[in-house]
Amino acid sequence: MAEYTGQGIFKIKNPIQIESYASVAGAKEGKGPLAEYFDEIIDDSHFGCATWEQAESKFQLEAVSLAVRKRNLVKEDIDLICSGDLINQCTGSSYGLRDLEIPFIGLYGACSTMAEGLLVSSVMTDSGAVKRSIAVTSSHFSTAERQFRSPLSYGGQRTPTSQWTCTASGAVVLKSVSEFEKNKVYITGGCIGKIADMGINDMTNMGSAMAPAGAETIKRYLKATGTVPSDYDYIITGDLGEVGSTLTKQLLMNENIDISPNHRDCGCMIFDNEKQDTHCGGSGCGCSASVLCGYFLPKLESGEIKNILFLSTGALMSPVTVQQGETIPAIAHLVHIERK
Amino acid sequence: MAEYTGQGIFKIKNPIQIESYASVAGAKEGKGPLAEYFDEIIDDSHFGCATWEQAESKFQLEAVSLAVRKRNLVKEDIDLICSGDLINQCTGSSYGLRDLEIPFIGLYGACSTMAEGLLVSSVMTDSGAVKRSIAVTSSHFSTAERQFRSPLSYGGQRTPTSQWTCTASGAVVLKSVSEFEKNKVYITGGCIGKIADMGINDMTNMGSAMAPAGAETIKRYLKATGTVPSDYDYIITGDLGEVGSTLTKQLLMNENIDISPNHRDCGCMIFDNEKQDTHCGGSGCGCSASVLCGYFLPKLESGEIKNILFLSTGALMSPVTVQQGETIPAIAHLVHIERK
Repeated sequence: MAEYTGQGIFKIKNPIQIESYASVAGAKEGKGPLAEYFDEIIDDSHFGCATWEQAESKFQLEAVSLAVRKRNLVKEDIDLICSGDLINQCTGSSYGLRDLEIPFIGLYGACSTMAEGLLVSSVMTDSGAVKRSIAVTSSHFSTAERQFRSPLSYGGQRTPTSQWTCTASGAVVLKSVSEFEKNKVYITGGCIGKIADMGINDMTNMGSAMAPAGAETIKRYLKATGTVPSDYDYIITGDLGEVGSTLTKQLLMNENIDISPNHRDCGCMIFDNEKQDTHCGGSGCGCSASVLCGYFLPKLESGEIKNILFLSTGALMSPVTVQQGETIPAIAHLVHIERK
Repeated sequence: MAEYTGQGIFKIKNPIQIESYASVAGAKEGKGPLAEYFDEIIDDSHFGCATWEQAESKFQLEAVSLAVRKRNLVKEDIDLICSGDLINQCTGSSYGLRDLEIPFIGLYGACSTMAEGLLVSSVMTDSGAVKRSIAVTSSHFSTAERQFRSPLSYGGQRTPTSQWTCTASGAVVLKSVSEFEKNKVYITGGCIGKIADMGINDMTNMGSAMAPAGAETIKRYLKATGTVPSDYDYIITGDLGEVGSTLTKQLLMNENIDISPNHRDCGCMIFDNEKQDTHCGGSGCGCSASVLCGYFLPKLESGEIKNILFLSTGALMSPVTVQQGETIPAIAHLVHIERK
């Protein structure tokens, strides 16, 4: 049973344990500062497939398979997969997972999908509707480039505010258990994002479009729970990048909330922006998914950290809406993850 | 608290009441057999907007606004909206609902979105994470035609198995109440769909692609609950159309399950296929959403019917996957709706 605090914020009272997780990253991510943390690095951007779209699907299936195998689970043990991605009609997920025959909830939250999937799967597990669920998402540099920007062969110049869509996937297995066990990791609360649109219409500046949503979700969760940033080891955002992270911190400072000492942004962590020419950092659903599963969850499991807020932020526009002169709405979902 | 029966099937024990609902339909739907049942018929396919995409967003906002106003609710009363649509990146939903500032979960289930949204919002309401939630979706003939098929001005010939994407929206407001009240309507169970792909690759024959998923979900729910088709007033499918409905019934007959006497398909009901030249019937997320909210929920509220299974079926391909030679995976979600 979840405890209601209103406005999309809740605490989960039942023990919803993070039983397993896995991360898979591409070649460029595998040469970045987090290389040693990923379970697998796939150097072939086609992952042995005929198309990049098929490769992205295979990244997602690989992350799920790894997470499931780590605990010797079989597919019949899983009651639900929550998944989505950036490809039109979310086919990265549906084609990647179609052979599993596991009940499937398709999500669309753009780069907020990892936190959104953790929210939905943890609450559905908490309700008792399912016992074990998986949240997974992916992104692929080449599927995103040709869909959102231009064909890769065009060789377009990237703007200073742009980010680099990660080729990566991360999967988390959640399990409803009878009681909290010491030294295990649990999802203990969440905050469902609200759509925020502050009028940004530059598709190469997603960080600025997403910052207001990120700041609003952090502020709303801290206020509702009566906590302050220093109560958490880290407040982690998904892929705000350099510009978006700075803006989010500024927006919160205007409300006298200083997250600077313990803020980390997966988009700023996954690449060495100077050396790897990735401008403002990484992005894409797979960015926060792979950094959560590769870097932060192992630290929670080992006890190095004990208490984090994990947000993913997503920009909800499409090439068509931008061509039609619309601005870019964004959203940020949050889950509270604790080691007991 | 939901009662777990495994394999994505659950009973909801808490009273999750359908507090309100509304339907909005376009001009062609407003000349069909169900014209008198819709709350509003909008004759202008642009709904006063500059683009069809903006019009679809407005249909969705209008359905939500109508449902909320019917019970004199304000947006602050709503803790969660679950929404999705067929437009790339689900912008029909995100742009339509962005000004509401209500916590938002974006879904992608293609034409299965209405049942998927009811599943997610009812379970999240059941868990206690939210008290009042909305499930809503939409589709628009012209946004779908130009994205999935060809520009309307091309005037392409339609195949006999094709369906006509409905311009319509439907919204349902769910509320957690303290106990079951007589003569009120509740969501009492559900079945999360599994992706099924039987190798169909004809994008103009969605009914055949979706039939295996529809049959599997119905069979799985009946088996898990120990019920038979005659236990329900209606077993309603979303938009299988003429071909898909026939196939679904055949697939179930092969398993000795005869749903024919009480099967209804929203896609077969919304148009007069002969007179309106709609071939196999209506389709699109808005088809099952508007027929549920316009036709079936009022009959449950009045007591004319008491017990239905409502499924929406969705085909999860994209134009890109079909161009790449892939087959069409599909999914069908189910909710059990009862009048107490």
